[in-house]
Amino acid sequence: MKRSLPPQTVLLPSPVLIIGTYGPGGKPNIMNAAWGGIASSDPPCISVSLREATLTYHNILEVKAFTVNIPSEKYVKEADFAGLVSGRECDKFEQAGLTPIKSRLVNAPIVKEFPYALECKLVKVVELGLHTMFIGEIVGMVADGEVLSAKKLPYIEKVRPMLFGSFGSMGYYGIGERLGNAFSAGEELRRN
Amino acid sequence: MKRSLPPQTVLLPSPVLIIGTYGPGGKPNIMNAAWGGIASSDPPCISVSLREATLTYHNILEVKAFTVNIPSEKYVKEADFAGLVSGRECDKFEQAGLTPIKSRLVNAPIVKEFPYALECKLVKVVELGLHTMFIGEIVGMVADGEVLSAKKLPYIEKVRPMLFGSFGSMGYYGIGERLGNAFSAGEELRRN
Repeated sequence: MKRSLPPQTVLLPSPVLIIGTYGPGGKPNIMNAAWGGIASSDPPCISVSLREATLTYHNILEVKAFTVNIPSEKYVKEADFAGLVSGRECDKFEQAGLTPIKSRLVNAPIVKEFPYALECKLVKVVELGLHTMFIGEIVGMVADGEVLSAKKLPYIEKVRPMLFGSFGSMGYYGIGERLGNAFSAGEELRRN
Repeated sequence: MKRSLPPQTVLLPSPVLIIGTYGPGGKPNIMNAAWGGIASSDPPCISVSLREATLTYHNILEVKAFTVNIPSEKYVKEADFAGLVSGRECDKFEQAGLTPIKSRLVNAPIVKEFPYALECKLVKVVELGLHTMFIGEIVGMVADGEVLSAKKLPYIEKVRPMLFGSFGSMGYYGIGERLGNAFSAGEELRRN
């Protein structure tokens, strides 16, 4: 029997997106965002939704660029810290012991210690209420060589990303076992 | 040393969203989408990006409603199947052995066998190129009682959702162990 519940923004899993931007005076900043996802394949785009109260919101509107850095599970403290404090109050890179590297393609910093990052140029802004959605075209990607698959793509079993278990758990989780092959596991249900 | 790579829509993790819609003649349909995420908290919204080639794209534009069903890991075949064939060619619910239940709040079907679903009304359409982003306001949620936390929210350790490991793995994965508490794990890095 299904139970009807009030509307809630519970999506399982939700990603842990560490958004890198430059702020006033070129100060590098990171924030932790869970509201986002891939938005289109061609052009390759990603969306991230932010509140106007955040420094990152203003940095993106000013600079029109950002990075989406994917932390591996061993950086759970650093990733969470990026969501606890504002870059207006401190240098989050420095306090978290992380290193900013400037992207070669966009005017935004990459987190050196994290396994890979998407480099994005702002292409669209969608007002939705408390949050504003920033859609960035992914113009490049940087990754540590050791997390890549044979096809030179970030491989989940080497990246070991974390995920946000949303409000039902208020926890971060790692990746579990492989369940099946995409575009293949369901073939046995096909009838023609 | 970071390696520069071509732009790719590799987000780890990506969700496995089973989109429920009614089509011509009220025929219930599901599709598997990985491009989406929560879009705003207030009003609560979720986005899903679809190609015009899909039946679901046209169903949503016509009916202005959809559900986002979250499959548990034991339904990996059924979830994958929903992405292998078109609802124009067959009855995907029937072939996958799944049961459509009409949402009480929106004109869209819920997958009875999956642990929970978000019920959405279309509020915005954003053209991005190959994909069109549909933003739905989450107006309600239905869930099996046994997957809820004490606060009546879907609890990830009971839902056991799957995730898409993207193009580097072309696999579906389960959820791993709890790594830490959100809005807490990073407290020890705070200095003031």
